[in-house]
Amino acid sequence: MFRFVDLSDAEVDALEARYGPLGASLRELVDAAIRTNAGDAEVRDAVATIEALTEKLRIDQIEGASGVHYNEAGRSWSWGNAAIGLRNAVAPPMDVQQSENGDTYAEVHLGAAYEGPPGMVHGGVSALLLDHLMGVTASRMTKVTFTGTLTLKYRNPLPLGRVVLSGEVSGEEGRKVFVAARIEGDQGIAVEADGIFIVPVWSE
Amino acid sequence: MFRFVDLSDAEVDALEARYGPLGASLRELVDAAIRTNAGDAEVRDAVATIEALTEKLRIDQIEGASGVHYNEAGRSWSWGNAAIGLRNAVAPPMDVQQSENGDTYAEVHLGAAYEGPPGMVHGGVSALLLDHLMGVTASRMTKVTFTGTLTLKYRNPLPLGRVVLSGEVSGEEGRKVFVAARIEGDQGIAVEADGIFIVPVWSE
Repeated sequence: MFRFVDLSDAEVDALEARYGPLGASLRELVDAAIRTNAGDAEVRDAVATIEALTEKLRIDQIEGASGVHYNEAGRSWSWGNAAIGLRNAVAPPMDVQQSENGDTYAEVHLGAAYEGPPGMVHGGVSALLLDHLMGVTASRMTKVTFTGTLTLKYRNPLPLGRVVLSGEVSGEEGRKVFVAARIEGDQGIAVEADGIFIVPVWSE
Repeated sequence: MFRFVDLSDAEVDALEARYGPLGASLRELVDAAIRTNAGDAEVRDAVATIEALTEKLRIDQIEGASGVHYNEAGRSWSWGNAAIGLRNAVAPPMDVQQSENGDTYAEVHLGAAYEGPPGMVHGGVSALLLDHLMGVTASRMTKVTFTGTLTLKYRNPLPLGRVVLSGEVSGEEGRKVFVAARIEGDQGIAVEADGIFIVPVWSE
């Protein structure tokens, strides 16, 4: 399921330094493409430039999606992940911090590409980030968990800009791990989430 | 909240024809950026090309995010939306169909940029798309609704590729609209969702 790669941490760092800026520059371009007032000819030129670049990058590419990798040192990375992937311009990307006791925290800047209601973060984007952070929270104690049920309570609108997520394990019961989390912005808590995560039988 | 724009439908069509291909070409580039094996020099060149293009598109751009627009004919569009926005490479984009009785349906191709577990759609991406489709489903009857509570039950993994979403109103009670929806792939229903949507007092 996860792919072993025979690379030292230094070699992984070098790849991260190569491809990280590509994802970062693309996020800016995605933002500009949403907000530009450029005219017909300029946009046609832009599309031609983008298509030519895509073709170049595709000359040597992997089959299918990125997957999740790990090396002998136990480091793991998923640069294509939709929530945290450094190489993936769809991901903000979110960087989940975990404190000693397992509580999780993330601070994310959400720009024009994450809009739902005018000027507000899309409710589904809050769901995406919460789902991911809660999965990380649940996995701490048991290594492998799957999302079972996620309940999201929408309390307030969440303006685009800097948002903060936090989560913690709220209980355990047999093969179930309960997680509570929330996302907040300048107007207070926007979405509260409760999740039940399942530890698969084969992993026990 | 929604911005009125004095444009005919034909003028809106022309803008859509200008900017739609920009979003579409960027989705391909985002995919290529995740999957390419290009070396240091090639990636540096790609970043330079992307940065130069971003700068050009930013010469004339709107303040802040795209917002939601409508014209006198009653047409409405939100090209920056994170789930359905044509100009937004973060969005697949999902095109929600609604039948006469209000039931909703969408068929979406989810590639490498929407990965969570290896080869599978990120659970949070399923949440994002379901949230949006269910909002559309709820709004049909009442024009304005806000997400109250969303409950997602994860049943099966969802392989990347073609996925299908469907939803319908399952009940109403005062200012609450209940919606049921699901997302499925080749391995059957992956996520089942129930939502409670609220009709704001001011809209009645």
